[in-house]
Amino acid sequence: MSTVLVTGATGFIGSAVLCCLADSRRDALHAVSRTGAPAGPGRAGCTWHAADLLQPGQAARLIATVRPTHLLHLAWTAEPGRYLTAPENFAWVRASLELLEAFQAAGGRRAVLAGSCIEYDWSAGRCVEERTPLSYASPYAACKNAMRELLAAMAARHGFSWGWGRVFLLYGPREPERKLVASVIGSLLAGQPAQCSEGSQQRDFLHVADVATAFVTLLRAEYDGIVNIGSGCAVSVRELVTTLGRLTGREDLLRFAPPPATPEAPLVVADTARLRDTLGWRPRFTLAEGLADAVRWWQSQRQSA
Amino acid sequence: MSTVLVTGATGFIGSAVLCCLADSRRDALHAVSRTGAPAGPGRAGCTWHAADLLQPGQAARLIATVRPTHLLHLAWTAEPGRYLTAPENFAWVRASLELLEAFQAAGGRRAVLAGSCIEYDWSAGRCVEERTPLSYASPYAACKNAMRELLAAMAARHGFSWGWGRVFLLYGPREPERKLVASVIGSLLAGQPAQCSEGSQQRDFLHVADVATAFVTLLRAEYDGIVNIGSGCAVSVRELVTTLGRLTGREDLLRFAPPPATPEAPLVVADTARLRDTLGWRPRFTLAEGLADAVRWWQSQRQSA
Repeated sequence: MSTVLVTGATGFIGSAVLCCLADSRRDALHAVSRTGAPAGPGRAGCTWHAADLLQPGQAARLIATVRPTHLLHLAWTAEPGRYLTAPENFAWVRASLELLEAFQAAGGRRAVLAGSCIEYDWSAGRCVEERTPLSYASPYAACKNAMRELLAAMAARHGFSWGWGRVFLLYGPREPERKLVASVIGSLLAGQPAQCSEGSQQRDFLHVADVATAFVTLLRAEYDGIVNIGSGCAVSVRELVTTLGRLTGREDLLRFAPPPATPEAPLVVADTARLRDTLGWRPRFTLAEGLADAVRWWQSQRQSA
Repeated sequence: MSTVLVTGATGFIGSAVLCCLADSRRDALHAVSRTGAPAGPGRAGCTWHAADLLQPGQAARLIATVRPTHLLHLAWTAEPGRYLTAPENFAWVRASLELLEAFQAAGGRRAVLAGSCIEYDWSAGRCVEERTPLSYASPYAACKNAMRELLAAMAARHGFSWGWGRVFLLYGPREPERKLVASVIGSLLAGQPAQCSEGSQQRDFLHVADVATAFVTLLRAEYDGIVNIGSGCAVSVRELVTTLGRLTGREDLLRFAPPPATPEAPLVVADTARLRDTLGWRPRFTLAEGLADAVRWWQSQRQSA
């Protein structure tokens, strides 16, 4: 039996991961967030802890209490519109090192951390693990790339296994309201115009529930290394947003900006051979099904509000 | 007027750097080591501080006290025969991040950190900044490379300037006795056989006093980036050791091992165009003069012992 500790457990991905793990009942499940258990009905089979991992000493105390065999470390700065340049990125490297050092000292066996497609140089288009050039342009990109290098070196030094899930774009229930899909759905359901970019850029979007099963698959795998977490399919932002218009019956409210002076990277899509073929993961949602699910969830939120 | 803080100030490079800086009287000079000022006559014009930077909170307290405009951060794990794989490498990334975060928050203007030729993939031979492939093979290499990426990103984010001195091999007065040049001289002066490797591998050796002036030059420069610190000249270990034999008159005590089953990298030498041409640094010692200086220093140590 494994003892799993999930950090960032009240976050967008963390909440979805906890659903998968709590369902499975194969593990003793521990979750940590700054404030402990979220409000609302508790999830059966999960022990909550309150800790601010950015405060020196708290990670070590948490690990000493839980003694996890498996660590899924999702906590990081993620505030929309700010996380790319936030100085907290550096503090999260510090905090994550402390967490990993305590984890290995307590006999931890496997650590999986969350990375991001932002680690790649976006001029590449299709992003392939270990082959596509990396970017260190923003504090977020530099800190995530450095963190992965440190994780790999520490795992090799101390003999624990590791995974690094590079998440592409995502959406779904409980998405922060300032993110693309949530904000467009929010505007359309409120009967307000949805301001969108010109939208020809192609991106890789995956439903958060599928992101969660990918992380759980990676946590349970014996694979050491980086794994892209994406759909593997590119869709233009314009097409995605238009689908949301159709699903809500409010295509009339979509407003596309003129092409920007500095064009965005035309294509960013995950190569998912490793996730699908090596790890055997399959998504539950197609993009159309996933977006419909997201719209339904926001509709139910409005009705219960 | 600048306020300079030197960490690792009792170390091999740190002691030599302090000599240069104390001579100049252009700066308010502060030095830190775990135990504070070393025993012996104090160096005029230097304020010593005792702090264990690996303990959370101590770096921030030190910076609040000194408020340096210039930081020369040399402290790191360096124990001969152990530093490459020491788990403390990861703790030094953590500690250095805390130091840099406090430094920038206190208005620090320029930070220079010590890197190493071990960051390079040694199959390259002549190592050129930003061009030669890097290695993340050992904890030391991975941590130094990650630290440099973090420094560059933090400096860009917060608007301070930075330098990264990649030190090649070095020798000179006060070298730790288990390192190559010190141990060979020690054996020869004691009249004992000096066990050496086969010695055909070519390396780049620089006298520690020249390493120190290179760091001081880099600290005072306005150059942002990585700078190799080496002589730019390759010498075989056999030739270097033979010179030490001649200088001590004890060539008869040199013992060269047979070629190893796994040959060492045949050539590791610094490209020093950046250090010489961009920064205008010049060494004081040729290799022959430097080795003679080292032998004289060890002889004087034996006579005064």
